[in-house]
Amino acid sequence: MLMVDIIRKKRDGGKLSKEEIDFFINGYVAGEIPDYQVSALMMAIFFKGMDDEETHLLTSAMLHSGEVLDLSGIKGFKVDKHSTGGVGDKTSLVLTPMVASCGVRVAKMSGRGLGHTGGTIDKLESFKGFSTAITNEQFIENVNNIGISIMGQTKNLAPADKLLYALRDVTATVDNMSLIASSIMSKKLAAGANGIVLDVKSGSGAFMKTDEDARLLAEKMVSIGKSAGVKVMAVISDMDQPLGRAVGNAIEVKEAIDTLKGNGPEDLHELCLTLGSYMVYFAGKASDRESARAMLEESISSGRALDKLADFIEAQGGSRDDVYNTDNLPKASKSVDFTAPYDCYVSSIMSEDIGVACLLLGGGRRSKEDVIDLSVGIYLHKKVGEKCAAGEKVASLYGNDDKKLAEALERLKGAYSFSDTPVQKNSLIKGIVE
Amino acid sequence: MLMVDIIRKKRDGGKLSKEEIDFFINGYVAGEIPDYQVSALMMAIFFKGMDDEETHLLTSAMLHSGEVLDLSGIKGFKVDKHSTGGVGDKTSLVLTPMVASCGVRVAKMSGRGLGHTGGTIDKLESFKGFSTAITNEQFIENVNNIGISIMGQTKNLAPADKLLYALRDVTATVDNMSLIASSIMSKKLAAGANGIVLDVKSGSGAFMKTDEDARLLAEKMVSIGKSAGVKVMAVISDMDQPLGRAVGNAIEVKEAIDTLKGNGPEDLHELCLTLGSYMVYFAGKASDRESARAMLEESISSGRALDKLADFIEAQGGSRDDVYNTDNLPKASKSVDFTAPYDCYVSSIMSEDIGVACLLLGGGRRSKEDVIDLSVGIYLHKKVGEKCAAGEKVASLYGNDDKKLAEALERLKGAYSFSDTPVQKNSLIKGIVE
Repeated sequence: MLMVDIIRKKRDGGKLSKEEIDFFINGYVAGEIPDYQVSALMMAIFFKGMDDEETHLLTSAMLHSGEVLDLSGIKGFKVDKHSTGGVGDKTSLVLTPMVASCGVRVAKMSGRGLGHTGGTIDKLESFKGFSTAITNEQFIENVNNIGISIMGQTKNLAPADKLLYALRDVTATVDNMSLIASSIMSKKLAAGANGIVLDVKSGSGAFMKTDEDARLLAEKMVSIGKSAGVKVMAVISDMDQPLGRAVGNAIEVKEAIDTLKGNGPEDLHELCLTLGSYMVYFAGKASDRESARAMLEESISSGRALDKLADFIEAQGGSRDDVYNTDNLPKASKSVDFTAPYDCYVSSIMSEDIGVACLLLGGGRRSKEDVIDLSVGIYLHKKVGEKCAAGEKVASLYGNDDKKLAEALERLKGAYSFSDTPVQKNSLIKGIVE
Repeated sequence: MLMVDIIRKKRDGGKLSKEEIDFFINGYVAGEIPDYQVSALMMAIFFKGMDDEETHLLTSAMLHSGEVLDLSGIKGFKVDKHSTGGVGDKTSLVLTPMVASCGVRVAKMSGRGLGHTGGTIDKLESFKGFSTAITNEQFIENVNNIGISIMGQTKNLAPADKLLYALRDVTATVDNMSLIASSIMSKKLAAGANGIVLDVKSGSGAFMKTDEDARLLAEKMVSIGKSAGVKVMAVISDMDQPLGRAVGNAIEVKEAIDTLKGNGPEDLHELCLTLGSYMVYFAGKASDRESARAMLEESISSGRALDKLADFIEAQGGSRDDVYNTDNLPKASKSVDFTAPYDCYVSSIMSEDIGVACLLLGGGRRSKEDVIDLSVGIYLHKKVGEKCAAGEKVASLYGNDDKKLAEALERLKGAYSFSDTPVQKNSLIKGIVE
């Protein structure tokens, strides 16, 4: 088998076989097939696409290119959750203790933030002492003991995907639904869960800019998951404005805790209940999604969900007191406010610009080596559709450096648009694929 | 400027600017842009194409990526000729002395054969002592003194093309007309001639399998040449069967000499007169192509063309006697004949198979390192449309090894098809682009 023949076949619109896909993935990981042939194939796939079967085969080849996590040591049904990345997305912080408190096993791998989107691990490190650098054994033990554990992605999980993604990034071959879907799902499936809920963000601040693209990606990922024999669904959720009102790290943790106390923003609460009800239902802890949702609401009102977060933080090196007393979390020393220029309604908030404003404050990474300031962030007093009186606070910036605050303020101002007349906001949940 | 942006632009159907094309060609030659980005761009170009302006710019960037031959030391108008490669194509051996004997300066770079097609330099080496390994100074002096010189391609001519072609070859991105045209023309233009005639072969044994593709390539190359300010034209000629009757090295030299004596095969004679009349006309040695053609015919009947070949061979180390006495050329020790199975007409001869049969005899190269046996070859007694009586010789194979002869015979037999009824043959000249 020759790689050039595989490239030519795809270039001419042919369908790749299992043998061909395995040949190229295994050869690439082994260093036997050079980057330049793989990038040519990726470009051919960009133009000619892959059907569902090819996409499943590619996912499977990447999934088996390295370690596949063995979670058989965890009793019961394990669920995982994945978001395609957004601004202000602290869903995992709320969702995972909520469903764990309903008896669902949450064994989750998370990543760090890069660019304008944040990462769950960074946010969790707002708890002093907390660490995701745990062994597989500790990970399994924690899930068995308290129902929840989160670890960083191990290096050897789906190495083919890591290689391919890095190559696609510099060869303009990222934007293909089959490649995106197989990239995400190969890592998720290698992480060993029995059920996966997916949150596909759609809008200005998301990887998928249109609802059509988001739905296509959601459908491909759900199809891959089903073909791999896991329970899977996807929510398509709005990212035309940030999720919730807090953007940053410690500030998002605080909002997540508020939500676990029943005092969080409505959009975040709703998204967590939607995703969570599927997780509880998939795990067989409820006979239908309505009763699953009721269980989750009870986990908040009873305080069990918040206690579960405390158990989890404590089990991974943090202090449970910090969950109950958020004043202990990192806090910035300075703040500036952005106020309404006139009586108006917020007509749009460009999520990506909000994310970049947070990055400018020091709350994000430009490159993987950057160190994050966990204390900085942004609070959106006003979101799309909300009325502002002239001079009223629209958003507050929290930082530790006047120059950065000034830069971030400029970016924040550019992110907001206002209208004289009332504005209809998008609904948060734009669709469900199951 | 980022290479990934250039790839994305072409991927999305954009038109590349001079700055972008120069950036990627210069960066690639300098080793600053990696193969994997260039191969992705090549695949994007495969799908999205390049317009004439982009094609001219790419040619120019490649042409200037290395040495551009300075032929200003040669007095007068210099012509060059290029063929896209065929089987039995000894045109240059006939054409160059013919036009040189009419006062045209022929400064030509030639290559060696690879695969099923032969190369002019290999054929010329059938003259003992002959060498194309001469300095630029000798090359220029020879053209000035006797009107003709042929040298091997210098290493530093259009190095960008060499790099790109090697990459395209292993990434299934060869088959794009703009890339093919710019590849050929960048080398030809770097070789410094004022006029170029192109022979684009079309048919089963050619790079271009259809007349449409051949015409498209011819048009692109002519357009490039004109935009570079040289006089240029292209003939589209039939390669559905080999050119002439001899295929090999010494055997082709003999046929070329026969043609210079006026005793050559009709198709070869006609092609040389057509291409040659443009060369003579371009160089201003005749007022129109009809009188140019008459001059060429006279160069044959007078023996001046043959004498010019002798001058040329002698000037590059061979013996002029060998031109007049072809018995001195290398000769194979054995032969086998392929005879007609029944009374029939030849309906087709797959050129590529004839080329491969010659390769099997040892007359060609599988890889660049192979050594060629100049004495072996094939003589086609019967070509398409010709009548064969049962048992009459259809073709003869000349070789030095019984096993190779047997293998080649099998391939040769497969190359021929016969018909009970008369067969119309293709016309040799399928079109002219000027």
